[in-house]
Amino acid sequence: MTYCVGLYLDDGLVMLSDTRTNAGIDHISTFSKMHVAEYPGDRVICMLSAGNLAISQAVWSRLEEGVMLDGFRQTLGGVPSMFRAAQLCGAAVREVYAADGPTMSSQGISFDVSLLVGGQIAGQPHRLFLIYAAGNFIEATEDTPFLQVGELKYGKPILDRVVHHETTLMDGVKLALISMDSTLRSNLTVGPPLDLMVLRRDALAVTFRKRITEDDPYFRSVREGWSNSLRDAYRAMSSPDWAI
Amino acid sequence: MTYCVGLYLDDGLVMLSDTRTNAGIDHISTFSKMHVAEYPGDRVICMLSAGNLAISQAVWSRLEEGVMLDGFRQTLGGVPSMFRAAQLCGAAVREVYAADGPTMSSQGISFDVSLLVGGQIAGQPHRLFLIYAAGNFIEATEDTPFLQVGELKYGKPILDRVVHHETTLMDGVKLALISMDSTLRSNLTVGPPLDLMVLRRDALAVTFRKRITEDDPYFRSVREGWSNSLRDAYRAMSSPDWAI
Repeated sequence: MTYCVGLYLDDGLVMLSDTRTNAGIDHISTFSKMHVAEYPGDRVICMLSAGNLAISQAVWSRLEEGVMLDGFRQTLGGVPSMFRAAQLCGAAVREVYAADGPTMSSQGISFDVSLLVGGQIAGQPHRLFLIYAAGNFIEATEDTPFLQVGELKYGKPILDRVVHHETTLMDGVKLALISMDSTLRSNLTVGPPLDLMVLRRDALAVTFRKRITEDDPYFRSVREGWSNSLRDAYRAMSSPDWAI
Repeated sequence: MTYCVGLYLDDGLVMLSDTRTNAGIDHISTFSKMHVAEYPGDRVICMLSAGNLAISQAVWSRLEEGVMLDGFRQTLGGVPSMFRAAQLCGAAVREVYAADGPTMSSQGISFDVSLLVGGQIAGQPHRLFLIYAAGNFIEATEDTPFLQVGELKYGKPILDRVVHHETTLMDGVKLALISMDSTLRSNLTVGPPLDLMVLRRDALAVTFRKRITEDDPYFRSVREGWSNSLRDAYRAMSSPDWAI
């Protein structure tokens, strides 16, 4: 499995993914699920992927070589808007489905892929999309300022409770790491290292990107600190006056 | 959906379930998923159920009327051990599967049920089991002192981090309510009121049982207090010295 989360904040985007892939519990590997197309001063577009690794790698390779959209072959470096970028990623998924879907289906393998695509193109707002295996997509809004793909449930409660569109990028990074930590602890098929990318609004260049290993001092402090905080928080809560 | 959790603590058992059932989002009802067989001084056995309501109601009805095990018809009031109680519940599931499974299967409806069965019989230790749709089961141990059925992922991180076999019953109640609250917030198909039962070790009678409504003052304080605690906790965490 995989866990990827994207935060659509007023100040910009926070994108975080794990790197574990597994084909059975005895076949576990590390692959980055984060791909970034950066053209400083013009655009940054980041794609995170969950699902079948062969599909998501094929999607990115096709995006690099160009995918047919509106009658001609385009790349993320050339699309005129983030909406078109999302459409292009969806078109790439459909190309892979057309190429590989029938054989996969005949072998009983489901066509399982989902993408988070976030970024900004000069002169336009930053946007964040979730692209489904059918190539269609939804967009994060101020009301729902985060999107997740993969093993998303363990890490959702903290985001549901705390993330707002006005959350700062730094707090967004903290919350994404807490959400990821909840997932890592509860599901062995999600694993470090993590890939983090932060894109500040109107920067038009990657603001911060980091491969976060298990030994990273800050991530370790998040993991230990958060567990301690939860323990302290429940201990501090009053008990009911029930006759237990 | 449903969320049920059982804590197997040194001091006894905490059992908590929601009451929402749904057959499509426009067909939502309230049904208790908690059934208790209490014979004061001799035994208390509590069953929580998740999955298809018709199946879980049929399982309980059959348990009340008697289910064949070891060649004769038995009830939870008569089984000689908690292991036999778990076997009897599994046998009840298999009876329902034999009766209804083929027709359900022919109509494309999966045979979806899972049970938590916990309790104590005089002179024996308290035990907690999770019974699968196949009628087989696993048992909670000191290493893994909680079991969940239904929509379990949202509420698992807090339990993974904090629950130990030595957790007190009162803390167990708090943690079960926090775990339930995380689920209620993130999944609309799990809903209040809640059914709580606490069985203190060797009490051989229900220690505490309560239908907890949305307006219950303590549950409201848990819901608000926990959200505030999480917000305070992440705010109190140091930020990384990354160039964000």
